[in-house]
Amino acid sequence: MRMITANQLDDIALGAAVLGTGGGGDPYIGKLMAKAAIDQYGPVTLLDPGEVDDDDLIIPSAMMGAPTVMLEKIPRGTEIVTAFEAIQNYLGRKATATMSIEAGGLNSTTPFVVAAALGIPLIDADTMGRAYPEIQMCMPSLYGITATPMAIADEKGNSAILNTISNKWTETFARTVTIDMGCSAMIAIYPMTGAQVKEAVVARTITQVETIGRTIREAHAAHIDPIEAVRGATGGYVIWRGKVADVARRTETGFARGEAHIAGLGEFEGKSLKVSFQNEFLIAQTEDEVLVTTPDLITILDGETGAPITTETLRYGHRVAVISMPCDRRWRSEAGMALVGPGYFGYQTSYVPVEERYG
Amino acid sequence: MRMITANQLDDIALGAAVLGTGGGGDPYIGKLMAKAAIDQYGPVTLLDPGEVDDDDLIIPSAMMGAPTVMLEKIPRGTEIVTAFEAIQNYLGRKATATMSIEAGGLNSTTPFVVAAALGIPLIDADTMGRAYPEIQMCMPSLYGITATPMAIADEKGNSAILNTISNKWTETFARTVTIDMGCSAMIAIYPMTGAQVKEAVVARTITQVETIGRTIREAHAAHIDPIEAVRGATGGYVIWRGKVADVARRTETGFARGEAHIAGLGEFEGKSLKVSFQNEFLIAQTEDEVLVTTPDLITILDGETGAPITTETLRYGHRVAVISMPCDRRWRSEAGMALVGPGYFGYQTSYVPVEERYG
Repeated sequence: MRMITANQLDDIALGAAVLGTGGGGDPYIGKLMAKAAIDQYGPVTLLDPGEVDDDDLIIPSAMMGAPTVMLEKIPRGTEIVTAFEAIQNYLGRKATATMSIEAGGLNSTTPFVVAAALGIPLIDADTMGRAYPEIQMCMPSLYGITATPMAIADEKGNSAILNTISNKWTETFARTVTIDMGCSAMIAIYPMTGAQVKEAVVARTITQVETIGRTIREAHAAHIDPIEAVRGATGGYVIWRGKVADVARRTETGFARGEAHIAGLGEFEGKSLKVSFQNEFLIAQTEDEVLVTTPDLITILDGETGAPITTETLRYGHRVAVISMPCDRRWRSEAGMALVGPGYFGYQTSYVPVEERYG
Repeated sequence: MRMITANQLDDIALGAAVLGTGGGGDPYIGKLMAKAAIDQYGPVTLLDPGEVDDDDLIIPSAMMGAPTVMLEKIPRGTEIVTAFEAIQNYLGRKATATMSIEAGGLNSTTPFVVAAALGIPLIDADTMGRAYPEIQMCMPSLYGITATPMAIADEKGNSAILNTISNKWTETFARTVTIDMGCSAMIAIYPMTGAQVKEAVVARTITQVETIGRTIREAHAAHIDPIEAVRGATGGYVIWRGKVADVARRTETGFARGEAHIAGLGEFEGKSLKVSFQNEFLIAQTEDEVLVTTPDLITILDGETGAPITTETLRYGHRVAVISMPCDRRWRSEAGMALVGPGYFGYQTSYVPVEERYG
């Protein structure tokens, strides 16, 4: 158990963008909301998953929708609490703590708003160990834990409680309700017991993203190679260095899809890397071979600062490094691969763990 | 209080199609479901609104979605009970009775399924006195009664509880959830106290449609002019007799829109009537003048049998009579006109009560 103050949120948000693998929403908005909440209500208690009681009730909270809309329609902050209170009311029980759905991007910080406003701890964990675009792509799905009952609320005062027969159906309904709500909504989802949290989530990822963020900040200040620093902090591999030659983007079925071509520099000179994305970077390949695929993490970093670059801000001429990090190994199970493997996203390639290729 | 057996459902469904004003869904499916439920569970108690206690809890139940889909995706019957039980569970209280949302079409009979299966009475009333296509178009809206909390459920086992800031927002969310559910769903909506039911609904419309249905059946058997019989039973006016010359249909924003042209016969010879519809028949006009508009009821009857004709079954060459009936006079208030007047449906004409023109 430790306290998180507003000062630590910069590192958390920066590190979260590394695990966001190009997507997961802009951590900046989440950081603003979380800072405002901590300023108003005081610091947040971060609780290790090992510290919860088996019969505690932990309810993750998150923002759902198109990150671009969230930029234009800044949340008041209170609607995330509305969704949370709606699910508590439905369950007839107050939550012991809240948690992040994803360690990457926006939703690594939004649950701080709930924790601060309601005066409950935040669990040092998330349900992905990275960012993914759909509700069923959470580790609890692999443990037979249902996403529902879940609550969804907008800033106007509308809310809904969903009960579905599968977590994929939860995604379907919550997605269209989110669209009706103006393309962004707050959710409280995957209510779990303490016992479930101990086994079914990715532990200590808030601390992990804070460490990554701090590493980038300090490397930058100390004029140490930030790429090497991030690699060290994440246990990952530098799979490419180069210059962005081309970025193609299109919006299909509610996703930002596209690919970036990165002309190699240094040891990669003369070759080109294609990184394809659907909200997140999902597969990196040269003309000859597939280097890395989902569920392993692919992140593009600014070559100078080490700052992670989202798919929206990737630009021609950008000097970058591409790093890859091993995913939580449970994603590599048969059920995990069915949920988030390359095949689910339409890539006809078999998955090879990144450390087998680079380790 | 009286008992309704399966035998009476034929008259109820037939009469409901008259108040369905061309829309409201095919009463045949509702009748099948209701008959099956009564066969299984026994007759349904029909309760006069005057017989309820002020603090009773009455929850109307209905089917929502595209009638054409309902034809292809026949409900199992149990999902209407699922929605009803979900709202009871949410409210933490069992309903004293259920009720029809609309007296016209399919939903005049679907609540019999809930009443029979749960062994609770059905209130002899509905919330429209006719059929309308959207959730907010219910009399309780005029009394400040909210449509939510409402429950919506599909045949697969998915369900949702909605809480919205207006009944128009209820329509928005429930409509898209219905689409996700495969374009048809069961709902339990507008929970009301007995005191509210006594003032905010249209009383005795189940008895009314049963009388209309019986009148058509008996007129047909006795070789009495069925058009004249329906006119008498509804307190309406025969505004046209003729032959369908043309029907144009298009589907726009989820509605069946179009118009029928009816060449006059007899006293209407040499003139043509245009009847426009958006699910329901909403306005009847000749080249020279507007004869009738919503909220008054416009129904097209088969000239031979007196059977009501829905917008989908209207065909070239059909010999028909068009009758119009005064709506519940509360629809004629300022708030009522805003909700269901010709302006809401995009017709730039002022409303003249049918009995002022024909009475």
